[in-house]
Amino acid sequence: MKENVISSNEDILIEMALLEDLDGVGDVTSSAVFSDETDEFYLISKSEGVLCGRRLFEKVMAKVDPSVNVSFHFSDGDALKKGDCVADVSGKVLSILQGERTAINFLSHLSAVATKTARLVKAAEGKVRILDTRKTLPGYRLLQKYAVKCGGGENHRIGLFDMVLIKDNHQDAAGGLSAAVEKVRAKWGDRYAVEVEVRNADEVKEALACRVDRIMFDNMSDDEMKAAAALVGGSCETEASGNMNLDRLASVRETGVDFVSFGELTHSVEAFDFSLRKNRGESKQ
Amino acid sequence: MKENVISSNEDILIEMALLEDLDGVGDVTSSAVFSDETDEFYLISKSEGVLCGRRLFEKVMAKVDPSVNVSFHFSDGDALKKGDCVADVSGKVLSILQGERTAINFLSHLSAVATKTARLVKAAEGKVRILDTRKTLPGYRLLQKYAVKCGGGENHRIGLFDMVLIKDNHQDAAGGLSAAVEKVRAKWGDRYAVEVEVRNADEVKEALACRVDRIMFDNMSDDEMKAAAALVGGSCETEASGNMNLDRLASVRETGVDFVSFGELTHSVEAFDFSLRKNRGESKQ
Amino acid sequence: MKENVISSNEDILIEMALLEDLDGVGDVTSSAVFSDETDEFYLISKSEGVLCGRRLFEKVMAKVDPSVNVSFHFSDGDALKKGDCVADVSGKVLSILQGERTAINFLSHLSAVATKTARLVKAAEGKVRILDTRKTLPGYRLLQKYAVKCGGGENHRIGLFDMVLIKDNHQDAAGGLSAAVEKVRAKWGDRYAVEVEVRNADEVKEALACRVDRIMFDNMSDDEMKAAAALVGGSCETEASGNMNLDRLASVRETGVDFVSFGELTHSVEAFDFSLRKNRGESKQ
Amino acid sequence: MKENVISSNEDILIEMALLEDLDGVGDVTSSAVFSDETDEFYLISKSEGVLCGRRLFEKVMAKVDPSVNVSFHFSDGDALKKGDCVADVSGKVLSILQGERTAINFLSHLSAVATKTARLVKAAEGKVRILDTRKTLPGYRLLQKYAVKCGGGENHRIGLFDMVLIKDNHQDAAGGLSAAVEKVRAKWGDRYAVEVEVRNADEVKEALACRVDRIMFDNMSDDEMKAAAALVGGSCETEASGNMNLDRLASVRETGVDFVSFGELTHSVEAFDFSLRKNRGESKQ
Amino acid sequence: MKENVISSNEDILIEMALLEDLDGVGDVTSSAVFSDETDEFYLISKSEGVLCGRRLFEKVMAKVDPSVNVSFHFSDGDALKKGDCVADVSGKVLSILQGERTAINFLSHLSAVATKTARLVKAAEGKVRILDTRKTLPGYRLLQKYAVKCGGGENHRIGLFDMVLIKDNHQDAAGGLSAAVEKVRAKWGDRYAVEVEVRNADEVKEALACRVDRIMFDNMSDDEMKAAAALVGGSCETEASGNMNLDRLASVRETGVDFVSFGELTHSVEAFDFSLRKNRGESKQ
Amino acid sequence: MKENVISSNEDILIEMALLEDLDGVGDVTSSAVFSDETDEFYLISKSEGVLCGRRLFEKVMAKVDPSVNVSFHFSDGDALKKGDCVADVSGKVLSILQGERTAINFLSHLSAVATKTARLVKAAEGKVRILDTRKTLPGYRLLQKYAVKCGGGENHRIGLFDMVLIKDNHQDAAGGLSAAVEKVRAKWGDRYAVEVEVRNADEVKEALACRVDRIMFDNMSDDEMKAAAALVGGSCETEASGNMNLDRLASVRETGVDFVSFGELTHSVEAFDFSLRKNRGESKQ
Repeated sequence: MKENVISSNEDILIEMALLEDLDGVGDVTSSAVFSDETDEFYLISKSEGVLCGRRLFEKVMAKVDPSVNVSFHFSDGDALKKGDCVADVSGKVLSILQGERTAINFLSHLSAVATKTARLVKAAEGKVRILDTRKTLPGYRLLQKYAVKCGGGENHRIGLFDMVLIKDNHQDAAGGLSAAVEKVRAKWGDRYAVEVEVRNADEVKEALACRVDRIMFDNMSDDEMKAAAALVGGSCETEASGNMNLDRLASVRETGVDFVSFGELTHSVEAFDFSLRKNRGESKQ
Repeated sequence: MKENVISSNEDILIEMALLEDLDGVGDVTSSAVFSDETDEFYLISKSEGVLCGRRLFEKVMAKVDPSVNVSFHFSDGDALKKGDCVADVSGKVLSILQGERTAINFLSHLSAVATKTARLVKAAEGKVRILDTRKTLPGYRLLQKYAVKCGGGENHRIGLFDMVLIKDNHQDAAGGLSAAVEKVRAKWGDRYAVEVEVRNADEVKEALACRVDRIMFDNMSDDEMKAAAALVGGSCETEASGNMNLDRLASVRETGVDFVSFGELTHSVEAFDFSLRKNRGESKQ
Repeated sequence: MKENVISSNEDILIEMALLEDLDGVGDVTSSAVFSDETDEFYLISKSEGVLCGRRLFEKVMAKVDPSVNVSFHFSDGDALKKGDCVADVSGKVLSILQGERTAINFLSHLSAVATKTARLVKAAEGKVRILDTRKTLPGYRLLQKYAVKCGGGENHRIGLFDMVLIKDNHQDAAGGLSAAVEKVRAKWGDRYAVEVEVRNADEVKEALACRVDRIMFDNMSDDEMKAAAALVGGSCETEASGNMNLDRLASVRETGVDFVSFGELTHSVEAFDFSLRKNRGESKQ
Repeated sequence: MKENVISSNEDILIEMALLEDLDGVGDVTSSAVFSDETDEFYLISKSEGVLCGRRLFEKVMAKVDPSVNVSFHFSDGDALKKGDCVADVSGKVLSILQGERTAINFLSHLSAVATKTARLVKAAEGKVRILDTRKTLPGYRLLQKYAVKCGGGENHRIGLFDMVLIKDNHQDAAGGLSAAVEKVRAKWGDRYAVEVEVRNADEVKEALACRVDRIMFDNMSDDEMKAAAALVGGSCETEASGNMNLDRLASVRETGVDFVSFGELTHSVEAFDFSLRKNRGESKQ
Repeated sequence: MKENVISSNEDILIEMALLEDLDGVGDVTSSAVFSDETDEFYLISKSEGVLCGRRLFEKVMAKVDPSVNVSFHFSDGDALKKGDCVADVSGKVLSILQGERTAINFLSHLSAVATKTARLVKAAEGKVRILDTRKTLPGYRLLQKYAVKCGGGENHRIGLFDMVLIKDNHQDAAGGLSAAVEKVRAKWGDRYAVEVEVRNADEVKEALACRVDRIMFDNMSDDEMKAAAALVGGSCETEASGNMNLDRLASVRETGVDFVSFGELTHSVEAFDFSLRKNRGESKQ
Repeated sequence: MKENVISSNEDILIEMALLEDLDGVGDVTSSAVFSDETDEFYLISKSEGVLCGRRLFEKVMAKVDPSVNVSFHFSDGDALKKGDCVADVSGKVLSILQGERTAINFLSHLSAVATKTARLVKAAEGKVRILDTRKTLPGYRLLQKYAVKCGGGENHRIGLFDMVLIKDNHQDAAGGLSAAVEKVRAKWGDRYAVEVEVRNADEVKEALACRVDRIMFDNMSDDEMKAAAALVGGSCETEASGNMNLDRLASVRETGVDFVSFGELTHSVEAFDFSLRKNRGESKQ
């Protein structure tokens, strides 16, 4: 039973973002030039990758002016090529210009996360599954984790509250790995899945003896992970963690671990470029 | 007289972020292992660059538990080397572990923006000044613009509300560049600084005739910009804009423009790595 | 791809509820009698049914005082008998008394919804599936829909935004059922599932011809529904709707419809009785 | 001097409710079928009882679209019969359909509370006064207490902060009933009215000796209450409490107590049925 | 039936105020000097007048630190002399110093409003009743109106929503005073009390013919008001309005009007001086 | 590097204020008389002083109805005479009347603060600089401090968090002035400017020896201040504080102190009178 539906914060972020850009007054340039004119614009993809954030884009425009019409030709998770017309946006020009930057800023960031994920998923060649981490932008955790899923990745725990992850400091404090697992189970029973961070073969064996749900290989070399994964032999899930990136994935995917988690999926992405234009056909540059 | 003090949103972001990570219940792992133990931790820099976000780090910890003591050894804007002990954090272990990830996530992102800015400022060799744009993360505009200043850059307008920027669509709608400037001045007088986007020498001349405050060279080649800047001859400010990056800066800085603006300063950064550890001296890996 | 994670509002409701009961000052009775005493209490079930809202109970207590310890012996969705000790609650008496009523008010309402659902699910004998509606308490939609799932029911659309439901007024405005379906598809493509409300056999046929995802039999007699369900013959989903209740279910479950939706699941429930006591063993009355 | 005006939360609940139903985008069905059409609708009562929540209904519609016109023919507290046309609602169809469910959900719940109260007030035959309790829906306390008054009932304390109610646990902790009263008065003087829960004749006498404002007979039999009320003899107010309901009221009203309080007034009501229709005259079913 | 309980905003103001003063970090001076010391302070009146805002003071302290103990020796509405010890405040020094300024700022402002009202009420000699207006500090309306009542005044309408006040612009638009009253009654029936602004004897007669609830004499001379009040002859309420102040009251109170309303009660007050000290007995200066 | 950009709260205050006045429903008088009429109004100054709050006025109107056009003829900080036409306001009459009172209430208060400041600045004759204090209206601190700057004054610290101010209680607790300064520097280094409150010549000397940034002469006589200022001899800043007002300024400005701080600038002002009228030329009274 999924207990952890929490606020996605997106409506608050939209409100904050429109306030940042308009400050409750609006676009002092456009309001001097436009009044009630309406027009049609096209949202053009200027990068290659995976779309994410369609609903955010729609909500920003609806918040600025409910009469603006947004019609997407792609869904979240769809592949985009450079030059694709992603959506039509029509209505009052003044409204559209006031929502444009905020709507695109959301779309660019979330599509960037989805696109980076898709690249890693592709490089994984189906041999390992790609996970995110808690290294997210404050306020964006659920949105970024949604983007990771749009890119074909999977979500690690949402936060500190929905899964147990026993790190070395917990083990030290409890008096060892097994003791820590025991304390957790004494308090929570089987309410939460339990993952344990290990650093060597002995700890792997100890974790296995505790029948944990997942074992995290923290900052191990490929060879160490291969040996550890063999030791586990599929009796529980395994996860490789620690400064992972695209280059490293090529070897890690061959070690036999089930999951690889990447902080950079959410903390270090390159914006996906979109442009809102009046001509659909050709790019400006 | 500065009129545009708006909400920085930071207190809302902190609240959202702690809710994402703790969901009003807390760290189910640590609460099974720790109770009232106190300890001292060290925040270690694992990257090289510029610190930004000290106050956010402090506020996150104070929000989790006002009795946690945070003592920074560096100020925002200071240079950090790998291995520097950036701050001491002492108090209840359970509190510190509950604030750790959120506090570091803020610091990593803002220091990343400051660091990227500092790199561009250095590459500018004092020949051009580095500006940000409105391509910010929704909800983070003032924080990111603060980080840009910590890195030695300068801020473009905050949003659509505090400066006039006449783009080609405004010119088209008004019936030309001069007509657009006129409409703006009819509505606002001299309340806002006026910048105009131009695409060729004729437009530069027209903008000069209008006595605008700044001219933006939009997606021009270096040669075009050099000629345009010569035409302006210092009679108003000039800004180069459009997909700028570190490589391009090397030539753009020689064109004679005053400012270069970079969207990537705020929409595409690589997280600055920090680690909270119990030993101050040596790194873990 | 699930796009519709929205705010569950639960954290705001908790804050509002504690403010209603404590007004930022607290329990003027208990604060005159207690200071720092700690004690252990037991949460006892005084009804029979299904538990729902464990996490809300925990969050209320954590919000009042993070050091209060709550330990549940049942999970959401578990069956409760009268007299069951549902949870242990220990810590500062003053804190527990300040959270007690709010925490129980949440638990009583959500368990009431789950319990009512479970009764209908049982009465359905596996022949029909039980759905909720949009007739929810404002602010409680996601919480109530979660409670319906805990009781073994299923969720109809969350709101007006995540599924198309073509009612008679839409058909009248569009110029008929088919015309309405067409307009919806012209605007949204296949983005949303489409359900159509029908009142007779002709409309069933028309809906089938449109290949909709689900047909709603609105306020039909059992015989009419039986005939209509036969007409559909499993080629799409069918739903019985309109003032359904436990008595009616006995006959409706035999008509061949797939789903029956009940407004009363969320708008008319009888509170589930809980009591927080200092003795675990026997009931007070 | 009334000190306790606190937030009724209603504006927040309206905002949350509209977000639940529209998610910032709107009614995907109606927006495909309607554009700017206007029409007139009638809000019809389909139950019998007491109206409550008129202003909430108006505010929901005004929030969706200030140009929608709502004109009520009844006031809060008025009796409604089945078939009564309660209000006219005219304006943009799209707006009205987007507000309809939320507006009715508020009205149905509050009218249900008022109606249940009115039934108890009638059954009380003027011999006892009907009170609510703190067993309210979190976030709805002031709204529900207002509905109780619309139904002819009276309000017990708002929360823990505006009146002293000394229960058995307070007496146990303070070392007896008198000791508890004394502690309360030492802390607060005569700032708050003081009610004391008693379980037998001795405690009644002790409470009388303390000159408290009201005595609560907690879970006593009718005979016990009669004797206790006689003992009090009007020297202070008396209240019967503990799992009261309509059936029990018939005998309790004869015991001589002043007030009877009912948790079910606010935690267990049956929704009052309303329907928004295009024809005023006859009901749909 | 009182329908207009709206949010008093006070909890939001408290939160904003503490954020302004502490910024989520705290008192950088006191936190360097104090740690866990506790002490007792005395809140001393340094002005003469009427206390108002006791509950705000308590709530600010409770928000900063629930363990701070505040014990008032006066109630809202009580008269204060210079040197009175108004309250004892004991607990953690660091907490008290962090709440002090905010708590006093509320108390000073509200007591100022109550004090100014009391002065006018005294000067009215019971011949006229003192009203406030809508010229309040944004966000403080209900608080200020509460303070006016503490000072012995009465409240005019809360806002534009709870009473009809027909001014000259409404009369002009509707085609005369009677036409405006008629339009109001056509829309609202007798839902709201109706007051009409008049400027001369003819308008008084017209208003009387309309049987309005109250007539406002707007910016009339004393003689005009005396004549107008005679004309009304007690057949409805009368109110004098327009730049009223203490000096003017001496003559206005003799004109026979029922009410006099003062904008300055809420928009122009002189702070009531309080001081939080460690010695109860004598003032510092 | 300026670290202390915090929320100005103004958007929250606007929302609260509009809710107070309109309660989510609106102006029940005007909505009965007006429908879609548009008109032009003039905002007329009825006092003499300094304008402050232009942006607030604009934002209130934009929040009520973005299509209302507001055009100011003066900037914040400009001098206003009685009868000046400060702004034109045109658009839907119903919208303008709903925003009028709230918009003017903000403008009146902020212009009052700016005007009072300007009077003190003028009286200072350039010999001392005028400062505000933390005695502000809760929720208005940044707005009031902005108004002080518009009037030509300067801002003292924002709150307890951005500057150290060592008062006598800190000195007592730390064991003397020097000890307090030392403790502050041990904790914060040179992160914050340090001001120390002194009461006599010895303390001045001690403060000078500590090389603090500013010395506050608290409640000293003019002669004492003159002597103290001489002692300081410009080696650090000096500030006169304690019940300052316009009369006292005449002598204090001659003592040689650098700054004088006034609580009354923000806690005791007389509203600046504005009127929104349909005729620009002449005043109503």
